[in-house]
Amino acid sequence: MIAALDVVGNPSSVHSEGRAAKMLVERARAQVAALVGCKTTQVIFTSSATEAAALAVAQKARHGGVFMALPTEHDCLGVWSEITPDPNAITDAGLVAISAANSETGILGAAGKVVGSTAQYSTICDITQLAGKMPVVYGDITPSYAILSAHKIGGPKGVGALVNFTADDPEPILRGGGQEMNRRSGTENLIGIAGFGAAAEAAGRDVAAGKWDEVAQFRNILEKTIAAASDQTIFVGKAAPRLPNTSCILTPGWKGETQVMQMDLAGFAISAGSACSSGKVKASKVLQAMGFDDIAAASAIRVSLGLETTLEDVQRFATAWAMKFEKHQMRAA
Amino acid sequence: MIAALDVVGNPSSVHSEGRAAKMLVERARAQVAALVGCKTTQVIFTSSATEAAALAVAQKARHGGVFMALPTEHDCLGVWSEITPDPNAITDAGLVAISAANSETGILGAAGKVVGSTAQYSTICDITQLAGKMPVVYGDITPSYAILSAHKIGGPKGVGALVNFTADDPEPILRGGGQEMNRRSGTENLIGIAGFGAAAEAAGRDVAAGKWDEVAQFRNILEKTIAAASDQTIFVGKAAPRLPNTSCILTPGWKGETQVMQMDLAGFAISAGSACSSGKVKASKVLQAMGFDDIAAASAIRVSLGLETTLEDVQRFATAWAMKFEKHQMRAA
Repeated sequence: MIAALDVVGNPSSVHSEGRAAKMLVERARAQVAALVGCKTTQVIFTSSATEAAALAVAQKARHGGVFMALPTEHDCLGVWSEITPDPNAITDAGLVAISAANSETGILGAAGKVVGSTAQYSTICDITQLAGKMPVVYGDITPSYAILSAHKIGGPKGVGALVNFTADDPEPILRGGGQEMNRRSGTENLIGIAGFGAAAEAAGRDVAAGKWDEVAQFRNILEKTIAAASDQTIFVGKAAPRLPNTSCILTPGWKGETQVMQMDLAGFAISAGSACSSGKVKASKVLQAMGFDDIAAASAIRVSLGLETTLEDVQRFATAWAMKFEKHQMRAA
Repeated sequence: MIAALDVVGNPSSVHSEGRAAKMLVERARAQVAALVGCKTTQVIFTSSATEAAALAVAQKARHGGVFMALPTEHDCLGVWSEITPDPNAITDAGLVAISAANSETGILGAAGKVVGSTAQYSTICDITQLAGKMPVVYGDITPSYAILSAHKIGGPKGVGALVNFTADDPEPILRGGGQEMNRRSGTENLIGIAGFGAAAEAAGRDVAAGKWDEVAQFRNILEKTIAAASDQTIFVGKAAPRLPNTSCILTPGWKGETQVMQMDLAGFAISAGSACSSGKVKASKVLQAMGFDDIAAASAIRVSLGLETTLEDVQRFATAWAMKFEKHQMRAA
C-alpha cells in the first residue's frame, strides 16, 4: 500500500502512469480471485462488502424478483430482505442471502437454516467472515454471487468485492466512467485495492499453512478460562462448526456495552455484536433469531483473536474479564 | 495516510481504537467542510464523486421526479439524465446537474448554458474539477447537493463526498450498518478519508495563497508556444473563464489517442478527454455539444498542470509536442 501511495496514475488512463496503476489493480484482482476460488474476470472491486451486497441484490429481477435474507444475515443484506423471516416461506424467494459464517457468532453455514434445495433459488453467499480464516468452499451451495471485504482479511477498510459467478455482467448501481468493465463506475481505490490484493495473498498462505489452528486452540483456552470463572456464561455455537478466531460470549444480566467499556479500560478492544451495529444500543437480531431472550442477547460480546494474539494475551484477557465479572456480581448482589 | 495505516480501529466501534479511528474521520470531515464551505454534518463520505452523483440523483423524487444533465456534464451525472439535451426543455426537470468547471475543458460554469432561473429547479453542483483549484463559490446557483472527489484535489483515488445542502438526510443507496449517520452504509475507508481531509486542508491553503496563479501563467505560456508551432490548433475555452491548470487542445486531423501515446513515449502523461472516458475510443460528447465536428473532437488532448509543474516542464512539453506535430504533418502530407 505504501508503494501504491507513489503510483500517481489513474488505472483508466492509457499513458504509462495509467498502465502502472492498472497493473496494480489487475495483480490485486488475481490475488483476490485466488483466495476466493474464481476467475479473475469474476471479481468486481467495490468500496465494501456492503456495496457488493447492494450490487448483488440489485440483480434480483434476473433471479425471480424477490430477495430474502434470514435475520441472522448481516444488515447489509438483511436490510434489503423483502420477505418476513419465515423459514417455510423461503422458497418463495428468487434470490437468497446465505452467509458462510455468521458475523456475530462465527457459526458456519447459517445456510443450514435455509429449507428446501438451493437449486430452487439463486444465492448470494456472504464470505466476509470466512474468507482468510478458512478455505473458501461453498459446500452444497452453488452461489450466483459472493461478497467479501478487505478489512476482514487483514487489508484496509473501505474496499470489498462482488464475485459474480453468473454468466451475465451485473447491472451496475454506480454508473458513469465505466470502470471495472462497466460493472462498477468510479475511479478505482488504488491504494485500497493494492492492500486488498496483498492481504488476500497473505491470508491464503496463512490458511493453507494451518496458522488458524493454533488460534482456535487459544480461543478454546479463553472460553475454558472464562467458563471456570462464571458458570452462567454461554459460548454461542461452542458445539457447532465455527470460525477459529471468534467467541460470542453471553453472560445474562451483564450488558455487552458495559463489558466493552470495562474491557476497553483494561486495554482490550472487543465488541457487542458486529462492529457496524455495536455503536447502536439494541439487542442482536442474530441472537434473538437463535432463540436467546433479550437479556441474554443484550449481554453478548464478540471477542476476535488474530494471528498475532498470544497465549499470554488470552490469559490476560480472561483474568481481566473474570475480575470485572466478579465486580459486576458484587454490584448486582 | 501513512499514520492512518496504523490505526486498526473501526470508526463505528466504541472501544478506544474505534474512537481513534472515528476522530480521524471527523477531522477529515471538518477539513473537507472547510474547503467546500459547508457544515461538517453536510459532508457524507462516499467512495467517489461517481457514488456521490448516484446518491444525489437518487433523491430526485424529492425534487419533482425528473433528473436532467446537459451533455457537457461528466458521465457519472450524464448517464442518469432522463431528458434529451434540449436546453429549452430543461425547466421540465426537477433536479439538474450543473458543473462548476467542465472535466474536459476546464471551462467554468457550464451552468451558463442552463436556461431559466435556477430557482425553478434543484441543482446538483459538480465541483470535482473546481475544488482545490479555485475558491468554491456557487454564484447564482443555490445547490441542493455538491459532489467532489479526493484525487482531484491531491488526495487518494477511491474516496469522494456528497455535500447535502438540503434540510433532509438523503435516502441511502448503500444500506446496512448505518455508517455516516445512516446516510451511507459500509465500513469507512479510513486511510482514504484521512488522505482526503489532509488534501482538502492543503488545497484550501494553496488556493488562498494564490499558488495557482503561476500555474495559469505556465498554462498560457504552454498554449502560446504550441500556437506558435501550429496555427491549426485550437485551445478550447481560451477566451472563457476556466480553471488555471487545464488546457484542452484540438489539432484537427491528428487523433487525440495518437498524441497521448506519442507524448507518453516522450515522458508526459496527458489524456484524450477525461481520464474515465479516455480508455474508450470515441469522440468527446462535451466537445460535440460545444459544436466541434467529429474530426476536431477526436483530436482533443487534455493537459493538466500541477503545482509542481515548472516552466522548464512546460517548455520541454511544448518542444516535444511541436516535434511530434511536425512529424505528423510530414506523414499527413
